[in-house]
Amino acid sequence: MRPVHYGLADIPADQATVRRSNLSLVLRHLREHGPQSRSAVAAATGLNKTTVTSLVGELRARGLIRENGPQHAGSVGRPGLALTLDGTRVGALGLEINVDYIAAFATDLGGRVLIDRRVGFDAMGCDPERSLDELATVAREALAELGLLGIHVAGITVAVPGLIDGANGVVHVAPNLGWYGVPVAERLSWDVAPTIPVTVVNDANLAALAEYTSGVAAGTTDLVYLTGEVGVGGGIIAGGRLLGGADGFAGEVGHVMVDSAGDKCGCGRTGCWETKVGLAALVRMVTPDHAYGVPDGIVRDPEERLAEIERRQADGDPQVAAALAEVGRWLGLGSATLVRLFNPRVIVVGGYFARLAEHLLPRAQAELTRLGVTGTVAHCTFVASDLGFGAASRGAAGVVVDRVLADPTAIEILPPEMSTLSGS
Amino acid sequence: MRPVHYGLADIPADQATVRRSNLSLVLRHLREHGPQSRSAVAAATGLNKTTVTSLVGELRARGLIRENGPQHAGSVGRPGLALTLDGTRVGALGLEINVDYIAAFATDLGGRVLIDRRVGFDAMGCDPERSLDELATVAREALAELGLLGIHVAGITVAVPGLIDGANGVVHVAPNLGWYGVPVAERLSWDVAPTIPVTVVNDANLAALAEYTSGVAAGTTDLVYLTGEVGVGGGIIAGGRLLGGADGFAGEVGHVMVDSAGDKCGCGRTGCWETKVGLAALVRMVTPDHAYGVPDGIVRDPEERLAEIERRQADGDPQVAAALAEVGRWLGLGSATLVRLFNPRVIVVGGYFARLAEHLLPRAQAELTRLGVTGTVAHCTFVASDLGFGAASRGAAGVVVDRVLADPTAIEILPPEMSTLSGS
Repeated sequence: MRPVHYGLADIPADQATVRRSNLSLVLRHLREHGPQSRSAVAAATGLNKTTVTSLVGELRARGLIRENGPQHAGSVGRPGLALTLDGTRVGALGLEINVDYIAAFATDLGGRVLIDRRVGFDAMGCDPERSLDELATVAREALAELGLLGIHVAGITVAVPGLIDGANGVVHVAPNLGWYGVPVAERLSWDVAPTIPVTVVNDANLAALAEYTSGVAAGTTDLVYLTGEVGVGGGIIAGGRLLGGADGFAGEVGHVMVDSAGDKCGCGRTGCWETKVGLAALVRMVTPDHAYGVPDGIVRDPEERLAEIERRQADGDPQVAAALAEVGRWLGLGSATLVRLFNPRVIVVGGYFARLAEHLLPRAQAELTRLGVTGTVAHCTFVASDLGFGAASRGAAGVVVDRVLADPTAIEILPPEMSTLSGS
Repeated sequence: MRPVHYGLADIPADQATVRRSNLSLVLRHLREHGPQSRSAVAAATGLNKTTVTSLVGELRARGLIRENGPQHAGSVGRPGLALTLDGTRVGALGLEINVDYIAAFATDLGGRVLIDRRVGFDAMGCDPERSLDELATVAREALAELGLLGIHVAGITVAVPGLIDGANGVVHVAPNLGWYGVPVAERLSWDVAPTIPVTVVNDANLAALAEYTSGVAAGTTDLVYLTGEVGVGGGIIAGGRLLGGADGFAGEVGHVMVDSAGDKCGCGRTGCWETKVGLAALVRMVTPDHAYGVPDGIVRDPEERLAEIERRQADGDPQVAAALAEVGRWLGLGSATLVRLFNPRVIVVGGYFARLAEHLLPRAQAELTRLGVTGTVAHCTFVASDLGFGAASRGAAGVVVDRVLADPTAIEILPPEMSTLSGS
């Protein structure tokens, strides 16, 4: 009988896994409890001192912890050296390419933000090759800056709005970028950083991770994140973990059927949620006689369009008020399905949903309540993200940090002049 | 920044947690690798020998492991005692109450099946008090049998088709039983087993766990289980874990809206999936002029009804063929939403879906393919469960076993005549 993971964490079983797990245990212990002696680490973790010494040697060599001189001179007995998480020498780079921008976000292991920027870029107007050139340029610049800061970059994660083969870093399909079978990881590795691991992850999944770690609903172990763009994506945190599914494709909320009598979607099917709550749908409702964004449903300049919608809403335009009410209603109706299936405590909305939150969320919340299942929906609340367009790249950097904490062997042994290897 | 659980397991941090985790580590190690000496356990786990000795003492006292005499007399040096998982003294009891039966399933920690039975019972025709009396009788009989076998019962889990407050073991609502706010755990504890922990869990969730551990798709880390009954429930295994949601209500697939122009559901809303694929819907389609099951949509005798449907299908009844095709189509259409959101590798169908699988699944699979998202649906397959009506009670017992493996301190110290406490 295979062990079932019912609420409690998996337990490692073979020796290499145990070593990695113990390295991680020591590193996380120092991160959560602050500087302390080897003896204190051994006592708290149940590991023997010889093992702790060996683990500490390896973590030092990988630039992840350092030892400070005895600081408590007044204490009884020979004071031990204090072990400290060294967050300053190892860093993580998150990148995002989306319809109209490329973003970069970098932190060190201690969480200090080193880079946080976004550059406008018309990915729709370029072929994938040209977009990858631009992404590579942004990556190269970021790595150069991190190099000047003396940061060893542990990994790069790229956020892309599409379905991704995580094992190979290939984007199967990113419809709003017009990408099909684009080998992002291989290209960045080859062109920019042959020695740095590059992974590619769905943008909404990464934004959900960022919300879970540092957004308005941080720490909420069951939450759904929705990206309000031309496309509508979803990222699911379930039991404190990102829900990936068998292929990493989970959370494809945009093409859930919500209206069997509805409009044809760009995907070829009928009544997809995206046709009701995507930005193109809103634009079509507020400017039905406007050629912009129609017939292909693609909106090129969301910021300008949103500013106009807000102006008209403030001026009391009844067409805009009706459109916002309709989008809010469908936002609630589609979310009812998500609540029944995922039972989240919070639905965090990003993108244009966040920008227009005050006009959309009260109606969405009312619809969710009207459709409620006893005891469930009553406890699920919509909230607007405050991470803005940086959510996905922030989540991308967070994935790299977490990978290092979970498996410190992911960091190479640093050159001897930077540290000394005392045991392994 | 809060650590993100991205694929790798959580790492414990405080001392009590570390102790529990280490007890679990030793227990699982012995379960997976078979009998071995303390030294071998220490070497493989990275724990020091003093710690291992202390852990072993506690596990022996709790009746979970035993020490066998030296077996390798020919080996060099003093042979150590071999530690062995003692699966025979501690057991788990799973119960299920459903519309037309009560089931009991018990195993010992080693997975040996001790009880597996189902008794017919018309829960619809009784008030909750009477149903709980019957459930208590079944539980008492099972405990008496286990007592005669010398089994210490580590816990009881009860499967109920409804929304359950897991913390208190209260059934909020089980519509097909007519239960609202029924304190199942308290009642069983009070009436049957004051010293045994009783938990209550949704039946579909437990059946999903049973499928994951011992069903046709065992070991598939991303799977969806669907119960085909009057009501349609769902249990989701995501990344090798049961998806619970914030309140344990996740997987309520039956009331996902699939047809905005559809029939009114018993829940008061319109177009729920249950109105398309529930057993009552099928019965209505094959016998539209039959008063049975209509107007309240409740079918009392599913086995007899299914036998009749199969007879008519075999006789080439076109009305039955059309109804099965229609249910198969809606099964596929609704599952497309589940595939987009959960990205499972397999959808396991139980209950009447399994009974009529050959007539339903080809059509459902075709519909899933027709609605497919590139690269996703192509890799998701329907399969019929072979666990029959025992799936939920089997899963219920599995939950108890897994809880013991994850936290051996859940087992009380057994009386001294049964073991000796050597350290703690």
